[in-house]
This record gives sequence, structure tokens and C-alpha cells, in this order.
Amino acid sequence: MKVAKFGGSSLASAAQIKRVFDIVRSDSKRKFIVVSAPGKRSSADTKVTDRLISYYQAYQKNNLSEIKIQQDWIIARYQNIYEDLGLTSKILEEITANIKNLTDLALDSPFTYDAFLAAGENNNAKLIADYFTANGLPSRYVHPADAGIRVSSDPGNARLLSGAYEQIKYLNELDETLIIPGFFGMTLDDEVCTFSRGGSDITGSIIAAGVKAELYENFTDVNGIYSAHPGIIKNPTPIAELTYREMRELAYAGFSVLHDEALVPAYRAHVPLVIKNTNNPEHPGTRIVVQRQTKGKPVVGIASSSEFSSLYLSKYLMNREVGFGRKVLSVLENLGVRFEHMPTGIDDMSIIIRSRYLTQPVAKAVIANLTESLHPDELYIERDFSIITLVGEDMKEHVGVTARASAALSEAGISIAMLSQGSSEVSVMFVVKSKDEEKALQAIYPVFFE
Amino acid sequence: MKVAKFGGSSLASAAQIKRVFDIVRSDSKRKFIVVSAPGKRSSADTKVTDRLISYYQAYQKNNLSEIKIQQDWIIARYQNIYEDLGLTSKILEEITANIKNLTDLALDSPFTYDAFLAAGENNNAKLIADYFTANGLPSRYVHPADAGIRVSSDPGNARLLSGAYEQIKYLNELDETLIIPGFFGMTLDDEVCTFSRGGSDITGSIIAAGVKAELYENFTDVNGIYSAHPGIIKNPTPIAELTYREMRELAYAGFSVLHDEALVPAYRAHVPLVIKNTNNPEHPGTRIVVQRQTKGKPVVGIASSSEFSSLYLSKYLMNREVGFGRKVLSVLENLGVRFEHMPTGIDDMSIIIRSRYLTQPVAKAVIANLTESLHPDELYIERDFSIITLVGEDMKEHVGVTARASAALSEAGISIAMLSQGSSEVSVMFVVKSKDEEKALQAIYPVFFE
Repeated sequence: MKVAKFGGSSLASAAQIKRVFDIVRSDSKRKFIVVSAPGKRSSADTKVTDRLISYYQAYQKNNLSEIKIQQDWIIARYQNIYEDLGLTSKILEEITANIKNLTDLALDSPFTYDAFLAAGENNNAKLIADYFTANGLPSRYVHPADAGIRVSSDPGNARLLSGAYEQIKYLNELDETLIIPGFFGMTLDDEVCTFSRGGSDITGSIIAAGVKAELYENFTDVNGIYSAHPGIIKNPTPIAELTYREMRELAYAGFSVLHDEALVPAYRAHVPLVIKNTNNPEHPGTRIVVQRQTKGKPVVGIASSSEFSSLYLSKYLMNREVGFGRKVLSVLENLGVRFEHMPTGIDDMSIIIRSRYLTQPVAKAVIANLTESLHPDELYIERDFSIITLVGEDMKEHVGVTARASAALSEAGISIAMLSQGSSEVSVMFVVKSKDEEKALQAIYPVFFE
Repeated sequence: MKVAKFGGSSLASAAQIKRVFDIVRSDSKRKFIVVSAPGKRSSADTKVTDRLISYYQAYQKNNLSEIKIQQDWIIARYQNIYEDLGLTSKILEEITANIKNLTDLALDSPFTYDAFLAAGENNNAKLIADYFTANGLPSRYVHPADAGIRVSSDPGNARLLSGAYEQIKYLNELDETLIIPGFFGMTLDDEVCTFSRGGSDITGSIIAAGVKAELYENFTDVNGIYSAHPGIIKNPTPIAELTYREMRELAYAGFSVLHDEALVPAYRAHVPLVIKNTNNPEHPGTRIVVQRQTKGKPVVGIASSSEFSSLYLSKYLMNREVGFGRKVLSVLENLGVRFEHMPTGIDDMSIIIRSRYLTQPVAKAVIANLTESLHPDELYIERDFSIITLVGEDMKEHVGVTARASAALSEAGISIAMLSQGSSEVSVMFVVKSKDEEKALQAIYPVFFE
């Protein structure tokens, strides 16, 4: 059996939902369907979830006219889909009541905001189940409480409780096609609690792991993952298959396709994942697997990410001081600063940190605390760095990836501020000044993909 | 004024001491002369210091015949020099008595071993002062107590006490050429206490800093420092000038010319240092300065060092765990394991450690403690790595050092296990398997020096 998750743009209109229906019906193994809230129909449109946020804010301010405006908009949105789908069931009344009744929730509950947001997915799931059934595919809407998605009481950042998978696996025993709203679970006190934003991917991944699916299909509006950012590289090669590890490295290094955390349950359960296009379902998409079958190219993708800073520290005979590195990291940890990389020389080290962690006051405190506790000879922060990351599990079998990439940068006259290649060789990281980021990507890309 | 330090091979025989005399006399600025114990006259010879160790061991065992053998050998060695120098003074009697009277020292004192060892330098200084004076260069032997070299009570690992420089600077007020034995200082309780082995370089450096010398000349038996190990690279280029920082990186990375710690006092006092050859004093040698005047080559030297291990650790979403890196380093620190480098990926890190720190029981404990505290997905130790280090302060102005070096390794078919280039760009480090170490050096060297 397969889990298929459809994103907001795949469910934004009746026309899109019909496509989704065709996709689901075309493969009897597509039994577990995880759905998002209706997304944008065009770039000028608004997502239902964003309207739910406005609705909540109006409710907070007790702005009655604004509440009415938002309720009407949201209900009209569902009504529009309902009518275009040619539905005649009572479901629209139910959705209308549900949206209106959100203002019955207590404002002082930490879960109310989550309940507002979750209404987008929840009502869409009901609507879709109705449509599927009406069109000859017996379907059942399953609320997360009934699906067994029990989560921690962390509003906006729910975590699946251990033991939840035991419950989820019983979904296998239901006969119908199951339509499950994504993005939220239920606490043990039956409060709605959402995953972090974009969390429908998490629901799909959890269901896939829980029912031990043979495949987790993540339907979105692109043909899959490209080997580089199409905004920087013209017509980059699509990636047919990559490993979870490669995906994770690429996602972390700047690719924004799949919600990072979403991968974990499926990965741990060894369920392969495929990213497919709702609007082009014949396209094989990008498969994400535990172990790749295809071999060949040393680099599967090149990501880039900006907004990094470097904390530089040197001290003569630093290397003699036992615990020096640990002390530096402790100072950062105490100030809540997370580090990305720590390339070291003999008497110096650079610590790569996302610039957002180094606001002016924090940077000042970092400098002050390090000066006091370690008396470095030199200590300064340099900003505006970007990291270019080359990712590929087969790198270790290809001598010279670093050589070829650094030669390309050198030929393009781009200085490598830092470079780190770990022993895993799943990735190589080049740090360049942010002004050189695009140029660097354009210099390296053709070396591995043309 | 200049401080000139002469090593053991420069003072191994009367012929060598005559050369030293000529060198000292040829420049009236050479006022502070720091001397080692007589070294080897040929490769089959024994250093006086090594004989003093045997002498101490015989004394420990109360092996009277062995004591006699060692005393006789050591005294004969000084006598031989004394006679060949044509000396007629009472100094030989004094040296003979001093060597014999070492057995008056209490065996249970922690300073006795140091006193035995220091006798090599101490008696040589007296002999040399006598010879210099006898040949028309008024010289004075200055015991470290009189020179102001007051040190901590750490036998075999003495540290200069703060405030000692205040005393040492008064040496400037003495008129004669001062002959100071290297390698040891005096505690506040007037006990002889030696620096770590090779510590005559330290004495020279301390005197240079204390008297604020214009130059610290370190006379040895080579023309200076070569850009690579002559045993691996045929006729490597000699280095005319390098910075303290470059010297320190090269020393740490495998060059064995100057005692590491010796550089600190001179460096801190901004005294330039020159390494010169006693047997070829016209050769300009290698200058070590705070800031280099000469510019040009991006790489001044390439060092290599073996016996490294890599501790590899991966965990999916490791990067999300605040304090992960710090925790890893804490585990190592608690087990007394020092690390050299820590290149990181996103979900993995490699920690480069000198293999001697990872004996079987320690390695087992490292694995056990890391497993317990961090639950990594993968964790293992790989051995037999070497580090090739390219050093040069001007690297940062030369795009492509890494590119050229890694291309050379790639062409030679050598896999780069790890690579780290810090933001300082004083050095770039390549980790290769030890079996490839020489081949790697031979591949990289011609790129920068031919």
C-alpha cells in the first residue's frame, strides 16, 4: 500500500481535486491520502491557512466585522470548491458550522491558535472524502485522533508520542480509501496541536511509517528535485533518485522542497519516498531512498545558502590548551548560538554561524565572553558569507571532486574563504563571500552536470 | 645586541668550539651566548646528555662499577675537548669534581635527575667561557641563577616565573661576552630544574626576550629550514624568511627544526630569530619574523605528519541537537583525548586525533561513552592517516592554492580523506591515508616550488 500526500496547490480548486481523484483512482494501492488545506490558485491568491491566521487575529482583537469578513471568505472558498465539484451533500453545512464555531474556543488556551489553523486541512479532508465517495471511490475521512496521531502538548511544534505507531498501523484494517488531514495531531487531552509549518509532509511521513507503506508519494507542483536552483542555473538537470542522506544535506544546504523534519519517520521506517507533480503525474519524479541503486555521477546536487558569519579566533599555542575547542563551543551554547562548522588551523579556528544567531548584542556578548575566558590573540566576526554545498554519496569513489570544484572557483576568480570536506564525503562545503554566491554556483555547476 | 645559541653538534669538539669562537668574535653584537652540552661528533657517537642519563641510572641502582665507567667517559669527553683547545686553566679540575660530586645529591629529591642532566650544559659553558677569555675575548660564565632564570618547580618541565624578565634584563649591564648554559633554570629554592628536552632553545629565547635582543641567532648544523623534508623531496628549496606563525604551523605539522615552545618568549617580545649553520656561517639561513617583508610565493613550506586517526560520527538530524559538538568534545576531554581538527558535515563529523591518544582501552571507552551519551547512527575509528599541511601567510591573496594542490593529488590518484581550510588561510590541511603520504608530498611539492 502507498501513502499519497497532496500539497495545498494540488488541492486549491475543484479542477485540482479532480486531478487528485484521477491520480488516486488510477492506482488501487493509493489507500492513505494525506491532504493539505486549499492553497493558492494563482500567485495573487491567498492560502486558506493564511486567512485562518487573519481570522484568529480578528478573534483575538474581538473585531467583529473583521471576524465576519474572514469567516465569509473562508467559507466562500470551500463553497466554491464544493459547487465546482458538483457536490450536493450536507458537508458544506458542516464546514460552515465548523468555521463559524471556531470562535467558541477559549482565547486563553494555548491550543486555540492551532485549532484555527488546523481547520484548513480538516475541512478540506472532509470535502475530499465526500467527493471521492460520490464519484465511486469509497472513502472515509479519518480525524487524526482516530488515525492514532497522538502528539506532545507543544503548540505549533508537536512531536509524535512514542507508541503512536502501534495505533496508526490499525489503519491498514479499514477497507476504504482513507482521507487524513495533514499538519496536526491530537494531544492525550484531545487538544488539536499542529506540527511546525509545512507539517502536512510530517503527517504523510508518520502515516507511511505507521502503516509500513511500500511507498510515500509526496505530490506537489514540481516534477521533482533539480540538481541546482533553477533561478540561478538555467534548466538544471532533474534528479531521478537520491538518498535520504543526500536529500537531507541538500535541504539543509538550501534546497526548499521538502520539510526537513518530514523525512525522519519515513527514513527511520525505511519507506522510500517519491516527489511527484500533481499536474504531471506521468513524470517519474524524484525518488528518495535509503540506498541508491543508480550509480555514476559523483555529485547529485549543488545547493547554496547565504546569511552566514564567521567567528575567527587565534591564539599562539592554542593547540596546547586542552579543552580549548570545547570551551569556545560552551561559550556559544550558553549564549544560545548554534554553530554550523568549525574548521581549525593549528593556532586558529573559524566557526561558521548563521548570521541570524549573531545579532549585534549577541555578537558583543560572544566577543566579550570569549575574550574574558580564553584571552585570544585575535578575535573577530566577519559577515556576509554563503555556503556552496556539493552533495553526493558516491563522492568518496570519485577522487577529485574537490579539485575540480575548487579549480572552477579559482578560474572564475572566486576566493574560497573556507573549505571543509569531512571523512564521510557525502558533501563538500565551500564558503565564499555572498557577493560571489551565484557566480560560484554557475562556475561549479557545469563541471559536474554538463 | 644579539643572543646566539649553539646546539650540541656545534659544540661537540674543540674544532667545533673554535668555529663557534670565530663566529662570536666576528660580530661584536654577539654578547649573549647560550650553549648546549657537547653533542655527537659523528653519527656513531653518544651525546654527553645521554651519558649523564646512564650515569644517573647507575647511581640509582648503586652500581659502583657502572658509575665509574660513566663518570670516566664523561670526564674524558671534557678532557678531550679541553686538551684539543689547548687550555691550561684549572677548569678541568672543576669539571671533574663537579661530575664526580653529582653522587652527593640525594636520590629521593625530585630535582636530582635534572641536576645530572644540566651538568652537561653547565660544564660546557664554563669550559667555553675559559677558552674564549684565553683567546682574547673577555667572557664570563653566568649560571642561570645569576642570569635571573627563575623557574617553576616542575622537574623536566620548568616554566619561567613571571617577573623573571625584570632580572634578566640586567645582563645588559655586564661588559663581557656572557656564556650561559642552556636547558635549565633555578627554582626559588635554588634547585636545578630543566626545561623539556631540547630546552636550550628555550633558554636562548628567554634571554633574547629578557635583554630585548635585536636578534636571536639559533646556530645548528643545517643551513636553515627547507620548504619540505629533504628525505622525501630531493633538494627542496631553502626558506629565506618566514613568520613565527608559519614556523609554528610547520613545526606542528611535522618539521622538526626548532623546539616548539622555544619560539614563544622571542615571539611575544617581537625579537626576530634566525636559524643558521655553525659550519656555514656565511649562509644567511632562515629568518623567523613577526611580519614577513618578502612577498610572493603563496606556500612557504609543506609539512607532513603521520599517526593520525579519525573518529567518525553520524546521526540523522544531529545538527538540530544544540550542544552536540560540545558534548562530543567533552567526552574526549574527560578521557584525556586531545583533538586536532573537527571537520563537520551536516549530520556527521570527523574528529582527527593523534593515534597515540587512542590506545585500545581509550578507544573502547570513547566509543562506549559516545554511544551512551549521544546515540549516534554510526560511530567508528579509522586509523593510519597522515596530514599534509601547506603553510603560507600569503595564501589568502592567492586564489587557488587548494585547487592546485587537490588537482595534483587527484592526478596522482590519491584520495583526499579530509580537507580543511580555515578562514585564516595560513594553512590548508589534507588528510590522506598514510600509505599515500610520501606520494602526496611529491605530487604537491612541484606545483608550488618548481
